[in-house]
Amino acid sequence: MSSNQYLDIAISQAKMGRDEGGIPIGSVLVVGERIAGRGRNQRVQQGSATLHAEMHALESAGRLSAEDYANSIMVSTLSPCDMCSGAILLYGIPEVIVGESTTFQGPEEYLRSRGVKVTVINDAECVELMGEFIRRNPELWNEDIGV
Amino acid sequence: MSSNQYLDIAISQAKMGRDEGGIPIGSVLVVGERIAGRGRNQRVQQGSATLHAEMHALESAGRLSAEDYANSIMVSTLSPCDMCSGAILLYGIPEVIVGESTTFQGPEEYLRSRGVKVTVINDAECVELMGEFIRRNPELWNEDIGV
Repeated sequence: MSSNQYLDIAISQAKMGRDEGGIPIGSVLVVGERIAGRGRNQRVQQGSATLHAEMHALESAGRLSAEDYANSIMVSTLSPCDMCSGAILLYGIPEVIVGESTTFQGPEEYLRSRGVKVTVINDAECVELMGEFIRRNPELWNEDIGV
Repeated sequence: MSSNQYLDIAISQAKMGRDEGGIPIGSVLVVGERIAGRGRNQRVQQGSATLHAEMHALESAGRLSAEDYANSIMVSTLSPCDMCSGAILLYGIPEVIVGESTTFQGPEEYLRSRGVKVTVINDAECVELMGEFIRRNPELWNEDIGV
């Protein structure tokens, strides 16, 4: 599968989150060619302070070996925040594909400085999903990014 | 309560984790003078890849306001890893009290460079808890830190 196909799966997770009344951010953890985990932000659905989409994807993938993480890609509709970037560093995930970093930009340069390959696609659908959500739910969005 | 009293509560969480067969790391999130969340590593107990002790404490505290986080302290028996340090940065938690960073040291200098006050106590009981655990369970420990 291509980066765009992985991103499409992350977008479908984001839309599921939106349709559940949640924050429309989705992620997939790809190990080799396999979709090992899928996730979407769980702040609203589970009242979670830690299950951002990337964390939810890591959690749904379960306990993996260091070898699996070393052969993985994190794909997310939005630029990973400090927490999610930290999780990527913890597990030595070597590559991150970001749907967009226009509405929010996490520490992409810091990830790069730690050896992670970060590719930003700036996908129009990802931008629109977040833009519409933030216009309608500015307080919920601020809560999610600690503002 | 003093830093040492908060650390004692984190140590009690670590011991609960140990007695459950888990990784003996405990944390508390203090908001003002209140223990808002308590946590212990959940890799074994819940099969979790993301619930390190600090994350578990954040999760158990539930959804908090930015004002609460800005008035909080994270207390942990062990130096927070990249993921947990990232969560501290996400929420703008201004202070971290670390039981020990002898057996494992997370990105304490990076936290400081981002404005977080980090105090390392180097508590003998915390060192012993981790030392004994790692001697008995080196593979489980490596999995937890992505090695």
